[in-house]
Amino acid sequence: MLNVAAAENESVFITLEDLEDLAQGAAFLGTGGGGDPYIGRLMATHAIREYGMPEIIEVDELDDDATVLPAAMLGAPTVLVEKAASGEDIDHSVKRLAQLVGRQPDALCPIEIGGINSMIPIVAAARLGLPLVNCDGMGRAFPELQMVTFHVYGVPATPAVIVDERLETVIVETNDGKRAEDLIRAAAIQMGLSVMISCYPMTGRDVKDYGVKGTLTLALGIGRAIAQGRKNGEPVESLLAYLRSTEYYNHCKVLFDGKITDLRRETTRGFSMGHCELAALDGSARRMTVLFQNENLVARVDGKTVAVVPDLICIVDRQTGQPVTVEAMKYGQRVKVIGTSAAPIMRRPESLAVFGPQAFGLEEEFIPIEKL
Amino acid sequence: MLNVAAAENESVFITLEDLEDLAQGAAFLGTGGGGDPYIGRLMATHAIREYGMPEIIEVDELDDDATVLPAAMLGAPTVLVEKAASGEDIDHSVKRLAQLVGRQPDALCPIEIGGINSMIPIVAAARLGLPLVNCDGMGRAFPELQMVTFHVYGVPATPAVIVDERLETVIVETNDGKRAEDLIRAAAIQMGLSVMISCYPMTGRDVKDYGVKGTLTLALGIGRAIAQGRKNGEPVESLLAYLRSTEYYNHCKVLFDGKITDLRRETTRGFSMGHCELAALDGSARRMTVLFQNENLVARVDGKTVAVVPDLICIVDRQTGQPVTVEAMKYGQRVKVIGTSAAPIMRRPESLAVFGPQAFGLEEEFIPIEKL
Repeated sequence: MLNVAAAENESVFITLEDLEDLAQGAAFLGTGGGGDPYIGRLMATHAIREYGMPEIIEVDELDDDATVLPAAMLGAPTVLVEKAASGEDIDHSVKRLAQLVGRQPDALCPIEIGGINSMIPIVAAARLGLPLVNCDGMGRAFPELQMVTFHVYGVPATPAVIVDERLETVIVETNDGKRAEDLIRAAAIQMGLSVMISCYPMTGRDVKDYGVKGTLTLALGIGRAIAQGRKNGEPVESLLAYLRSTEYYNHCKVLFDGKITDLRRETTRGFSMGHCELAALDGSARRMTVLFQNENLVARVDGKTVAVVPDLICIVDRQTGQPVTVEAMKYGQRVKVIGTSAAPIMRRPESLAVFGPQAFGLEEEFIPIEKL
Repeated sequence: MLNVAAAENESVFITLEDLEDLAQGAAFLGTGGGGDPYIGRLMATHAIREYGMPEIIEVDELDDDATVLPAAMLGAPTVLVEKAASGEDIDHSVKRLAQLVGRQPDALCPIEIGGINSMIPIVAAARLGLPLVNCDGMGRAFPELQMVTFHVYGVPATPAVIVDERLETVIVETNDGKRAEDLIRAAAIQMGLSVMISCYPMTGRDVKDYGVKGTLTLALGIGRAIAQGRKNGEPVESLLAYLRSTEYYNHCKVLFDGKITDLRRETTRGFSMGHCELAALDGSARRMTVLFQNENLVARVDGKTVAVVPDLICIVDRQTGQPVTVEAMKYGQRVKVIGTSAAPIMRRPESLAVFGPQAFGLEEEFIPIEKL
């Protein structure tokens, strides 16, 4: 069991039983995107059965000069739900990156805890017999490769290795994180928009300084809170109570309670782009619009911004608390839209320059959710 | 001077004075594509002035286990004419490939003698102080990376290293030559459609077995024949006389003497695609259509095929003998369309499977020009 209250330096483990809650919590942190963790959970289940459970370590357990490699899936969520990975492709991306940097990895880490990329590093760690660090680079999900704290603080994204299901491999080398994203996206589109990636090779020091810590544990806690609340018929209340107890997501609220009345969604330039509109269920004429690029970017009620990136905008089923991804949205669906604060490192000016509202072409300035 | 009649094993040199004729001959062998060698000639001139003349060696001078790396430019000719390379990008592609295969190159070689890729290897050899092998992989130009004898006979195209003017680098690794082309093309489009590439790392034995030999010398001979014929006012006759004296291009003829009456040309999917139509200048109602994908693919007179890939279809100015690239074609231009046989290795069934008419989506079977 991944012990949510593990004592410092005490090793914690993920078990098969944890995966469902972890996937649920990761779907919430995916803020509509990140890829549905369902397929990732199947892959993680398979990998743990075959190779055993990977050890989860805390950031503080890393030596400063340790080599830490991220493992992730990259592509359009609309494709990810139709196409799994073999596992060999995950191994190959990590091993090829290790060859290119000339160092064996001491640990792997998630780069994005939201969505399927909570699960891919578990698969990789299990298959490769490596520990997995309990952290990521955003504490949520984001659509582009440079939208991560490691990039904000100057860790080069490359060499970046992307691998498809035939083990065809593309390696990108550039000092410019946004160009790395452009080049990798172009290759990923050519490779069928669902590839494995290992990039941002890091030292233990990098991970300690720039990682968003404890996010595997937090995702599991979120999933458990939803599951436990569901037993009492109050999943959203249970979820909010848990979020309020956390360091990052403690400013949280139900932004809207409504049904989806309009939905525009297209897969273009390698992303799921669009918006949805919701009508209030309280009999008022209030309407919410949520814009997304893979992930939900901004929520506005009657034109007034109520939450905006990098704060989290998460749509959940109003009865079950089940997170609703952009792909799963349906006309007429009754949902609650929950907003939460992002981790403090995500809200700094240097971070907002990379993944604040302007980075997505939005007009609004970032205002923390607790001030909106 | 690159001695056209160099005795076996006698070292030959390219001089600055040779470059103009070599470029002219390479433009002819470019069969409408390959990129205008004019910019390449400027780059080669610059490199030779700064670094000295590269040694030209014959295929037979290579040890069987020598490491031979090709150097080339890849992109749409319409872009190549507007964008030069710095030289550093060429060096970087070769050096990075050498690192990846873990061997230092003993020599470089052209992979495509037609067009600008006759010049890029000269630039690379001069800058890197390496000999250049007098051969290529087609004896002409072709639009796609797998359309080369080395691929036909199983030399892997990858690792392939492409580098742009900012030294941003994409490396492709796959055992499938056509997939390598797809992945490299996608990256090249993202990188501005004009990149340096080093790929098909080879042994001396590979080059001996599968190279189209002597093509640097042949390109120079073609350019000289045009230049010399121009002095007598008979460049096309001089050109044909020289071609008849060669081993590969000896089946040659003027397929059409006409003016361009229709021209459709677009840059799409990373290629210059289209066709031109010509009306006869002899007063008859005969019309020729030439289809091209970067290079001229098939020439038909009143619907009847008169030459088809991999045989060469070259359009030249009817007065000056100047080869006319697809980009340089103009409405009303008066030209002669010359057809020649391709090198025998290019006409074998296994070669036709890769770059015969069907590989370009054409309906006709390959029939040698001497039988049409």
